This record gives sequence, C-alpha cells and structure tokens, in this order.
Amino acid sequence: MTNNHLVLQTDFGLQDGAVSSMRGVAYGVASDIIISDLTHGITPFNIFEGSFRLFQTFSYWPAGTVFVSVVDPGVGSKRLSIIAETTGGHYIVTPDNGTLSHLLAHGLIARARVIDETTQRLPGSEKSSTFHGRDIYAYNGAQLASGQIQYTDYQQVLPVDQLVKLPMQPGRYQTTATGVAQLVGNIDITDVNFGSLWSNIPVKEFEKFNLAYGDVLRVQIQHQGHTMFDDVLPYVHTFTDVAPGEPLIYIDSVYTVAFGVHTGSFEQTYHVGAGPEWAVTLTKVSA
Amino acid sequence: MTNNHLVLQTDFGLQDGAVSSMRGVAYGVASDIIISDLTHGITPFNIFEGSFRLFQTFSYWPAGTVFVSVVDPGVGSKRLSIIAETTGGHYIVTPDNGTLSHLLAHGLIARARVIDETTQRLPGSEKSSTFHGRDIYAYNGAQLASGQIQYTDYQQVLPVDQLVKLPMQPGRYQTTATGVAQLVGNIDITDVNFGSLWSNIPVKEFEKFNLAYGDVLRVQIQHQGHTMFDDVLPYVHTFTDVAPGEPLIYIDSVYTVAFGVHTGSFEQTYHVGAGPEWAVTLTKVSA
Amino acid sequence: MTNNHLVLQTDFGLQDGAVSSMRGVAYGVASDIIISDLTHGITPFNIFEGSFRLFQTFSYWPAGTVFVSVVDPGVGSKRLSIIAETTGGHYIVTPDNGTLSHLLAHGLIARARVIDETTQRLPGSEKSSTFHGRDIYAYNGAQLASGQIQYTDYQQVLPVDQLVKLPMQPGRYQTTATGVAQLVGNIDITDVNFGSLWSNIPVKEFEKFNLAYGDVLRVQIQHQGHTMFDDVLPYVHTFTDVAPGEPLIYIDSVYTVAFGVHTGSFEQTYHVGAGPEWAVTLTKVSA
Repeated sequence: MTNNHLVLQTDFGLQDGAVSSMRGVAYGVASDIIISDLTHGITPFNIFEGSFRLFQTFSYWPAGTVFVSVVDPGVGSKRLSIIAETTGGHYIVTPDNGTLSHLLAHGLIARARVIDETTQRLPGSEKSSTFHGRDIYAYNGAQLASGQIQYTDYQQVLPVDQLVKLPMQPGRYQTTATGVAQLVGNIDITDVNFGSLWSNIPVKEFEKFNLAYGDVLRVQIQHQGHTMFDDVLPYVHTFTDVAPGEPLIYIDSVYTVAFGVHTGSFEQTYHVGAGPEWAVTLTKVSA
Repeated sequence: MTNNHLVLQTDFGLQDGAVSSMRGVAYGVASDIIISDLTHGITPFNIFEGSFRLFQTFSYWPAGTVFVSVVDPGVGSKRLSIIAETTGGHYIVTPDNGTLSHLLAHGLIARARVIDETTQRLPGSEKSSTFHGRDIYAYNGAQLASGQIQYTDYQQVLPVDQLVKLPMQPGRYQTTATGVAQLVGNIDITDVNFGSLWSNIPVKEFEKFNLAYGDVLRVQIQHQGHTMFDDVLPYVHTFTDVAPGEPLIYIDSVYTVAFGVHTGSFEQTYHVGAGPEWAVTLTKVSA
Repeated sequence: MTNNHLVLQTDFGLQDGAVSSMRGVAYGVASDIIISDLTHGITPFNIFEGSFRLFQTFSYWPAGTVFVSVVDPGVGSKRLSIIAETTGGHYIVTPDNGTLSHLLAHGLIARARVIDETTQRLPGSEKSSTFHGRDIYAYNGAQLASGQIQYTDYQQVLPVDQLVKLPMQPGRYQTTATGVAQLVGNIDITDVNFGSLWSNIPVKEFEKFNLAYGDVLRVQIQHQGHTMFDDVLPYVHTFTDVAPGEPLIYIDSVYTVAFGVHTGSFEQTYHVGAGPEWAVTLTKVSA
C-alpha cells in the first residue's frame, strides 16, 4: 500500500525547469499527493551516486513511500523502466540501469515489474524521447503514490536477480599472509557539504578490531595505486573529540567507517576523494 | 478558478532567507495551499531566462495553478505589478517587465490586470521597497491560489498587447539567394546540468528538411559573428544513438532543435553557450 | 500552540541525502505536517549566518510554526539540544550554540527548555552520534509541529539568560571627539545571489542623519583595519534611482542600512565582503 508520499531524485539540478515539470505532471495526476525531494544534485550520469543516495535515505521514510529516481544516461534506449518494491514496502520507479545496486547488495529489493513505455506514460508525450523523468517516471510515480494504480497493475514481472547491478562489494576485515589484521575497502562517497569520506567498510567488520574510543589506526588512502594519504588517526565518538582542524575516524550515519576533520573538510584538506578508484586500508599500530 | 497550487520562480537563489520569507507570507495568507518551486536559479536580472522557464514548465501544471515569477531589476520603480491569465487557465503574478515574452509570442496569454502596489500588499510592508517578491507577489499569489480573492477583484484591466515584450523571433526555414535550404536561429538556453544547447528553431520548421534519424546536417554556431563550432552531426532519436562523447542533433523536451553530447556537455566540450548573441545555422550536406 | 508547519534550516546543502533523511523522519512521525525549507545553504559551521537567517525570516511565518535549525559543529558533544519559544509564539528546535543570538539580541526569545538526547530521539538511533539533525531535531520538531508533544512536555527549563549568545552589537549613531556625526557598524551579511552588503546599522539610527532620498553620504568599508572602499554614495528609495552599474545606499528588507549596485553586485564590483572583520563608517559630506 502506498501512502501518498512521492520523493524525487534526479541528476537534473534545480537551475532549470525540469524538476518543476515533473512536479506539475505528478500533481496533474493527483493534486493532493505530498511531493518531496531526495536530491537533484546527483553528479550527471552518475548511477552509483544515485544508488547510494537511495540506500542512504529510503529507510527513514515511511513504508509505502514512492521514490522516483532518474539518473538515466540511456533515456530513450532499450533499457527498461521498472517499479521495484523494497522488503520494507517502499516503491522505486526508475530506469533499470544500476540505480538499485546498493539496495540489491543489501538484499532489500523484494520484487520488480516493468513499465510499458509506450502506453504507461503521460498522454500526449509520445513524441518526446529524452525526458522520461517527466513523461514516464513522474507520471507513473504519482499514479502509484496516490493509489490510482497498484503495483500489481503492471503486468510484466522482472525477477530480482535479473535487475541491472553495478559491480561492487563491501569492505572487509582480513589477515594478510604475514598475519597483519587489516580493513580494506573503497571510499564510496562524501557528505558533500562537509567533505568527510565515507568508506564501504561496515561497522560490523570494523568491530573485529575491538577498538575503544581514542584508540588509533593507520589509515592509507590510495588513488589508482598511488598513496595520497598515510597517517595515524584516532577513532572517536564525535568530531569534537579532536581539536579543530584535526583528522579523525568515526562511524558515519549509514554505519560505515568514515574519515573527517573537526570543523573542516577531509576531502579538501588532504586532496583526496571518493569513487571506485579510491582505496583505503586500516591497520593497527603496534604498541 | 484557481486550484490551491502556488508555484514560485525567482532569481534569489536558495542560499539566504528570501524565498523562505515568501513562503512564510504565503502560508500566513492561507495555511493549506500547496507551494512548489519552479526554480530560484534564474541568473540574476535575466528576464529572458525567467520567461523561458515559465514557458517551459507551465503547461505541465494543472489549470488553475498560480505562478509567482520574480525576476525584477526594476523593483520599487514605476514598472507595473500584474496578474496574467493564460489561455489554459493558469495565473501568473509578476512584474510587467518581459517575463511573459515567450508566452505572449506563442499567443498563450489571454488577459491581464494590474495590482495596486499601495493597497494590495502585505499589511505592514509599506516601508519596504526592495522586496516585492515577499511584500506583493507572494502575498497576492497566495490570496489568488487559495480563492480568497478572484482575478476579477483586481480592478484595472491591462490590454494584452500593452504587456512588455522582449524582442524575440523564432528560428525558421529559409532558402538563400543561391538556393541553399537552411535553418537559422539562435541558441536560446541550455538544460543547465547537462549542457545541451536548445535553439529557438521549432520542430515544425525542422521537419521541412524531411530528415530520417541518422541523416546528417552541417551545424554552424556563431558568437557575435565569429564561428565557434562548425561540424557535421547526425540527427538522432536519443543520446545513446551515438557513441559516448559524440555530438548529436535532437529534438528537446520543448520541441525545438537542440545539440547535445552523449553522456557529456555540448556547452563545455565545444566552449559554446546560449543567449541572443549565439546564432546557429543548419544546412544539408550534399551527397 | 503549533500549527502543523515545520521549517528546516541546515548547513548540509542539498547535494546528498541528509536533508531528505530529516524529512523522512519528520513525515514518519506525522504524515500530514507541512514541511518547508528555510535554507540549507548556510556556510558549513557558520552559526552566525544561521542565527541571522532565522531572524531574517521567522516573523514572516505564522505563529505556531516550528523551526528546526541545525548548524551544529559540536554534534555529539555536551552542548545542549533545546526548544525555544519566541515572544510571537514560534518554536525553534536547535543546538544551544549561538543559533538564537540575533533573536536574543532583539529580545525575541520568551523561554526555552532542554531536550533529553538519550530518550527524546528517533527510536533505534542511539548508536548514531554525528547526525542529530535527523535523529533528534527533525524527530522532535515533527512531534512538536504536529501537536503529538507540547512544549511543556519537555521537563528541564533553561533560563533565557543562560542561552549561548555570540558576541554582537548593533551599529550606532555617534559623534566623534571633533564633533563629526557618524554611523559605525559592521557588514553582517549579503543577500547572496545579488551581492548587496547588509550592515548592522538599524534604520532608526540612520534616521538620526535626517536624510532625504538623493542625499549623499561618504561610505568607508574596512577589512581588518584596511580601507577597501571609500566613496560618496546616494541614499535612494530603490535600485533604479541610479544608473545601471552605479552604487547606492538603501534600506534592506530587514530594515538596516545596506549597499548595492543597480543590476550588479556590490560585493563583486568592489571586492568587499561580510562578517565581523568588515567594518563600515558613514559620514555626512560637507556642503
């Protein structure tokens, strides 16, 4: 059951009229739905980022919320348009291009069906082939959010294991050949405004180190094999546990290992970044 | 009849408190209206851009929607404040400074009346003369959207042909003195986040070339008489019909001729832009 | 009595999922509240700016509106989380770190109580210590806005004179030892998109000069003691009273003395800025 909430995510930005056209179409379907934004600041064409932001936020929304996520470099091509349902009863209307990768990796997608792009679209939009966010996704999302159509009204089932997945694997605890305990992973993303680096190392792996707040770890960050950062940082409860300007290790709000600077930007201070080419290794420092 | 929807457009940005003050005033008038944004990212003082974004989006909103559009370099001067009604029953509350140019050029404004700035304004705001977005436009927009006042409650009629219009004319098909068929026009605007160039050449003019997808055209873009781009591009259905990074011609979502790059920015790749000083010519390539 | 309106301000930006998580939590508490943004563009960690934007906008919102303001460099530390009520019946849910400084300076805070961060928070969020915007402020804000809890349900009273205040004082009229009348103050802030400078000199002090529109004043702007601007400007009713590109003195929309350029940016044109290190002096020019 949907709950009248529609949440929009795109890589369109808010500088032009694209997102407003989507809202207009959605309200035209159902004037009393409640429309919110996830973000429209996804880096253009960056499906990984869109996938991450969905994963980061969806569980904080009530069951029954419908998300429309449009990061769609293949708009108008043969990639499918789908509706997926999470195990918790959220719906996601999106191109099937990897946008669900994080949710799939965590086993959070329960089922999916295909939208018929030729018939299930804004009436009169048939000649337009480059703005499915407006013509297909917002339109179907609003129908679904308002209860005018049901998930089961979409006829074509798409098995979950056939959904497009970007290659990705979580960071992990491991012991090297020489017996050194390590956490290895990637820097997935930043919290943009603050410049902290969020790794893909889950707190459960981190806990295998049995650290207490204040303990230190060696952190090495590499970009395409080149070491860009190598220092010993304290693991802390919150930013103010170090002096202003000092770096630190903490557990971020999606419960992975992260690196920040007290009232500063780790990203800008150390000229490091996020993405699959950024690797991180944490090791205990011998006493 | 208005429908309780109020849509705001300004060149104020979202970094300070200006737009929020407008929302607060509007909710103070009518707590249960539904307020949305068109965009607040109009380039400061750029009335043409504001006019274009209104035209781009308004028809996707239900009839009865009230738009407030404030790109108002003449705030506090003698320029009029008006309410216009489109032929489809949308309302626009705005300074009469050219913001309706695109709608007027397409014959989409049915009638207009004048707001009395001395009496039809936020009570207590009489001393303020530089923020009519808050004191006049949001206030009147909310009264109108909620049905507390009607369009006809504004007493002074302003004939449509007296509304301020920016100079503009659509691109067109023509034959040169030597018998060469051409499309000539300007680059009106970009879809900001993606950097595609949208011309002012309507699809109806473009169709006089009788092209099929995959046919090529010579595209010349000039800035103040200097050629900035000159190449032969394919006309395609959607971006993925060319290889990533390759340029293309397509029909954009307002149904004019546009130029893009597959998963790239035409604007950044070729150092070209939009505005009245950017001209474009398309010609058939001899076989 | 709250009125079902919840208004969010942060320094999180809108590029990632943080603000959307806050909205989701708030709607999870009460699906039918009306959520708006003040701004999420506060400069990271800049409590003064957050304080100013609250002061700039709150009075334009109906009494009973609940504001959540999160500029919180001390998140997870011992700084208190509070709910304050203005003299006009608005509520503000915020860390007690100076965010209320402008409201306090104007005598606009009536009372305050403390949130118990260990119990009055999103259920299940106990392990998270770096995102109180989501886990504490949005959650409590939504409970309060919807009327599920009342202000008086918070048990611990915090006397208003114990609230954290940033050092600040308004600009003022004064006479120098040699008998010269002056207005002295600071440049508090800009209206970001336009680049006008808003001083902290109230219109009431300015009126002691007994000026008429068109009269001129000498304006000196200093940065850390160095003169950055020194020119004679007219005091005008609105921007168009001078030629495009010309500077001017006007009364801004929070009723302090401000400096602008007609269809231009004072900030960019003259390479000046805002903040406590920017001082301004206005003097009459001898006839």
